[in-house]
This record gives sequence, structure tokens and C-alpha cells, in this order.
Amino acid sequence: MRQFSSGSAESSAIGVVDVARWEQYGLDGTMPFQAMWYTIPPGGSGPRDGHPELELSIVVSGVATVETGGQVTDVPVGAAFLLDSEEPHVIRNRSADVPLVVFSAYWMPLTTEEKAL
Amino acid sequence: MRQFSSGSAESSAIGVVDVARWEQYGLDGTMPFQAMWYTIPPGGSGPRDGHPELELSIVVSGVATVETGGQVTDVPVGAAFLLDSEEPHVIRNRSADVPLVVFSAYWMPLTTEEKAL
Repeated sequence: MRQFSSGSAESSAIGVVDVARWEQYGLDGTMPFQAMWYTIPPGGSGPRDGHPELELSIVVSGVATVETGGQVTDVPVGAAFLLDSEEPHVIRNRSADVPLVVFSAYWMPLTTEEKAL
Repeated sequence: MRQFSSGSAESSAIGVVDVARWEQYGLDGTMPFQAMWYTIPPGGSGPRDGHPELELSIVVSGVATVETGGQVTDVPVGAAFLLDSEEPHVIRNRSADVPLVVFSAYWMPLTTEEKAL
């Protein structure tokens, strides 16, 4: 068993967002996805984003306000949201005092070959 | 964007553990892993378990006490633990009053073919 903690992970800043990518754990060939934690401070917002990878996010602290295509959805602690490949999105933390912490797994769209495995 | 909430998910009981498997969301071919939430009530314990799938768990409420091979580790909210294929484990909730809720992703060990993709 290996334990991983966002508090002790190496991280870097993207604007106000603190990002701790799991590449640092050397799990290549172990997991069929990449992973990260990211933290958005109260009142903060991530960049307008979009990428080929699908992204499944689990909120572990605070509430994520997810904007996609004009739709705004609040996702509370313990709930998850799945962004499709190339789906434009912005993640905001509208709380006045609680940091938003999210665990995300992301992966390229599965090929026909991979779906058959 | 799709949102998923453990509170509104269909679940079933395995002993005292409430398990909500993501098969109900029809995501076959979308994600390279299976997923579930499970909830262990205060003072409760999961079964002695072990399975061919690797399992990555994120604690979203409470503290998970993870027993593997005589080692006991407390994993707090927001942290993660990775169980290897066939690694025997027991998950306990030693809190007197806080439910333990865990999100887990699980997948079969990657083949050489998959690692190369």
C-alpha cells in the first residue's frame, strides 16, 4: 500500500491555482490515467481550459463551481464531475473562506483497441 | 459535463458497507477503470478483501484506517492510497461519529501492450 497526500506533494502555481501532479510518484505503467490535485483559494478561479484528455474530478474540500458552455454547476464535497475531451471549462471557488481542493484523473479518449481489451 | 453524486447513487450493502458502483452510469468505453463510492459507518469495518484489480482510493469524508500485511495506516480526507493487485486489505472507520466515505477507481494490471499505448 502506498499513501499520497496533497499536503506533502510537490506542486507548482498556474495563476492562483496550486497544482500537484502525480508524475512525481513514478507510477508510469501502474495506472491507466494521469492524476493531480489542484487547489483554488477562496474567490479564485482557474484558467479557461480545454484539452484532449477526458477528466474525472472528485471534490475533496469546498465546492467547485464548474462552468461549461454557459452552464454553471456547483459540485459539493464527495461528488464528481466528468469533462469530455475538448470540453471548454472554467473551475471557480466562490467561497469566501474555504479552499477548493479537487482530485482529478485524466486520460486520452480510449481507442477501439483499448475498449476491446 | 456530467455530475455524479454519491447521495443519489444506487447502492447496495456488503455487510455494514454501502457500495455505489459506477456501472450504473453507463460509462463503458469512456473510462479506463471502474469506480465506486463506499461508505463505512462509525465503528464499522469492511471485509478482509483482496482482488486482482489495483485500487486507488481517495478519502472524501472521515479517516480511513487501512490494514495491509500487519501495517495500519490512517488516511485522512483528501489523501489517497493505492492497493496493489492481490494485496490483502481491511478498511476500518475508527471514528465514533463521522462516516467514512471513499471514492475508489480500480483496474486490472496493465499489460505490456497497454503500457506501450
